[in-house]
Amino acid sequence: MDQINLLLGGPTKNLPPLDDIAGPWIGVDHGNITLLQQHITPMISVGDFDSLTTVERAMMEAQVTDIRYANPIKDWTDSQLALQVALDDCQAQHLTLYGATGARLDHELVNLFLPLDLHNSADMAKLQLVDRQNVIDFYPPGHYQIKRLPQMKYLAFFNLTPVQQLTIQKAKYQLAATDFARPTSLASNEFVGPTVNFSFTQGVVAVIQSCD
Amino acid sequence: MDQINLLLGGPTKNLPPLDDIAGPWIGVDHGNITLLQQHITPMISVGDFDSLTTVERAMMEAQVTDIRYANPIKDWTDSQLALQVALDDCQAQHLTLYGATGARLDHELVNLFLPLDLHNSADMAKLQLVDRQNVIDFYPPGHYQIKRLPQMKYLAFFNLTPVQQLTIQKAKYQLAATDFARPTSLASNEFVGPTVNFSFTQGVVAVIQSCD
Repeated sequence: MDQINLLLGGPTKNLPPLDDIAGPWIGVDHGNITLLQQHITPMISVGDFDSLTTVERAMMEAQVTDIRYANPIKDWTDSQLALQVALDDCQAQHLTLYGATGARLDHELVNLFLPLDLHNSADMAKLQLVDRQNVIDFYPPGHYQIKRLPQMKYLAFFNLTPVQQLTIQKAKYQLAATDFARPTSLASNEFVGPTVNFSFTQGVVAVIQSCD
Repeated sequence: MDQINLLLGGPTKNLPPLDDIAGPWIGVDHGNITLLQQHITPMISVGDFDSLTTVERAMMEAQVTDIRYANPIKDWTDSQLALQVALDDCQAQHLTLYGATGARLDHELVNLFLPLDLHNSADMAKLQLVDRQNVIDFYPPGHYQIKRLPQMKYLAFFNLTPVQQLTIQKAKYQLAATDFARPTSLASNEFVGPTVNFSFTQGVVAVIQSCD
């Protein structure tokens, strides 16, 4: 399967309009209810569903044919489990996560570091996190040319790990090859043309395009 | 000076009511305008002020006596600079940061990792980030007993760095001494009594108390 969207339980005010987004969808915990309320039936529901009321849970169980019940006392979060279902069972080539940001920071931080938890680290390039103000892509070491998203103004590089020889070219603020010993957010950069080039030799980098 | 509050430029919808919070305040960039609109005059204003309109900037300059102009092309962010002003110039013993979370993730991540940028790492224990749904404290290695905040439900431990021998006791989910090789968010834990104990021997840990 090429593209799958995941809806997590983050605040609905941060979501772009879901009607405009082509499916299929995997609902994660309370994200399932948000989908059903918008008349979108998830292909798969994943979660311990402890945030659902009895009525909500019954509504979900009446409409969704493939439900994966997670153990609430566990090492993996619902979002980590949903990601592996999409990658392993559905063989998703591109995964967009909505509802992964905002509100509770502990959940948001789990989601931002999800790429580091994947069974196969090559899968990280398949992930994208999206909310109303941020689009986040994840990169293993290499050379990249990225395109400006028309609705976004700012560009940032967030090193999720120690990173070696990070180089940024053709951006408002260039960076000569630099090592970072720990997670660092290089915020508030900008495109000056349609593309920016960057490269690094070790670590994991998230690229964030955002707007105010 | 014992307690100083910083107001950063994050979204105002995430802020607790500022009226209820005793000053003094340091305003950071657009946070100054939010303060002035609520009839709070910052003791110090810090920023490059590039997010302020001409009218807003004139309003600030007419009312604030101590303004520290930052260079917009710089290595330090406005929030990093404001933090050092509070710690070094004002000798603050406790610093609460509001408007540090939400909206643009690149800014939020800079703010979450601020403790690692301090000149003096012992100062990290003086910092606290607060929004409507999260209270975040930062800890160097040691043994701690933390108290449940009455309005919060969830407890999380976010390792900002590699962490050694993290142990959590008296919480809903206990943790025997465990090493973490990279930043990890241990989300959705809870208090079962009024206090939880934790300890670790190396690294930096953020403790997040949050509510839905």
